[in-house]
Amino acid sequence: MAQDSKPLITAREEKARSRLFRVEALDLTFSNGSTRTFERLCSTGNGAVMIVAMPDPDHVLLIREYAAGFEDYVLTLPKGAVDPGEDIITAANRELKEECGFGAHNIVPLTELSVAPNYMSHRISVVLATGLYEERLAGDEPEPIVTERYRMDELASLLSREDFHEGRAIAALFIARERMRDETMPLIW
Amino acid sequence: MAQDSKPLITAREEKARSRLFRVEALDLTFSNGSTRTFERLCSTGNGAVMIVAMPDPDHVLLIREYAAGFEDYVLTLPKGAVDPGEDIITAANRELKEECGFGAHNIVPLTELSVAPNYMSHRISVVLATGLYEERLAGDEPEPIVTERYRMDELASLLSREDFHEGRAIAALFIARERMRDETMPLIW
Repeated sequence: MAQDSKPLITAREEKARSRLFRVEALDLTFSNGSTRTFERLCSTGNGAVMIVAMPDPDHVLLIREYAAGFEDYVLTLPKGAVDPGEDIITAANRELKEECGFGAHNIVPLTELSVAPNYMSHRISVVLATGLYEERLAGDEPEPIVTERYRMDELASLLSREDFHEGRAIAALFIARERMRDETMPLIW
Repeated sequence: MAQDSKPLITAREEKARSRLFRVEALDLTFSNGSTRTFERLCSTGNGAVMIVAMPDPDHVLLIREYAAGFEDYVLTLPKGAVDPGEDIITAANRELKEECGFGAHNIVPLTELSVAPNYMSHRISVVLATGLYEERLAGDEPEPIVTERYRMDELASLLSREDFHEGRAIAALFIARERMRDETMPLIW
């Protein structure tokens, strides 16, 4: 299968840069000889983490915050950038305290998701947080984030909401639900 | 709740532009008076479509293609940009013929997913395609895309593969599985 050998990257050039974004062009020669120039967005920073935080075996915490990409409020999972020197678990616990006012005694990695691998290098670690306790840390949010509880068995009705559409968050919730059904790896509440 | 009134956009400026990407900065004043400048990536073009194509009630088609964002091959759902003048259904059928060598007699919209609404305006329409027939259209792919069949009830094992990680595709597969369980809206095979 020709696909087994990756295309050769013959050139790599920065095409645009802003405070948050960096665009790179890759010149590629595929194993069948064809050539392409593909633009891609490079992630900057130390990665990101998304948290499925469950106060009990039936509920999950969702946040409602302003999303500048959509110029509107969206319902999604708490998430944020990993700070320099932080590991995923520490970052997840900090973000949960900043955005939802809860810490977690137990945080287990679930998976790593890509955003749009064809044109972005970004990936996000997804963790499952249980054993929640009240603790709020000051974050850099422009206004308080609203936290709401939803039933895990009402995912289907959540999906019909107009403000709930982030692919990564939907994937993370379904994956957490699968994980909870795995009786060989019981969760600690 | 303060969140009920959206922040005011007091300025909007293009910060960077390349062939594929456009970065915009929004100056925002939130209803509590705090101000922020948020960068966001604006989608260009006519939108995109992602296809859950099922040759029978038990299987789905996945593609294996080179993803420049990850500099590696990835396993994901067929998808692509909507061309000018196309509707979602027409675009889905064309992409399916180009990438997988199949057309579909029945294509139903499932949902619309966002990619990263906090900093991207991008969204993708997800459709479910059934009643497949063989037909290949020439696309602009640099090399043939490999199409593979997977069982819908093996989503859990798919999730453990290192090359299967795209959040939108995972969300789309779970949503399609939910849709198939809805006996009030039977699918046509």
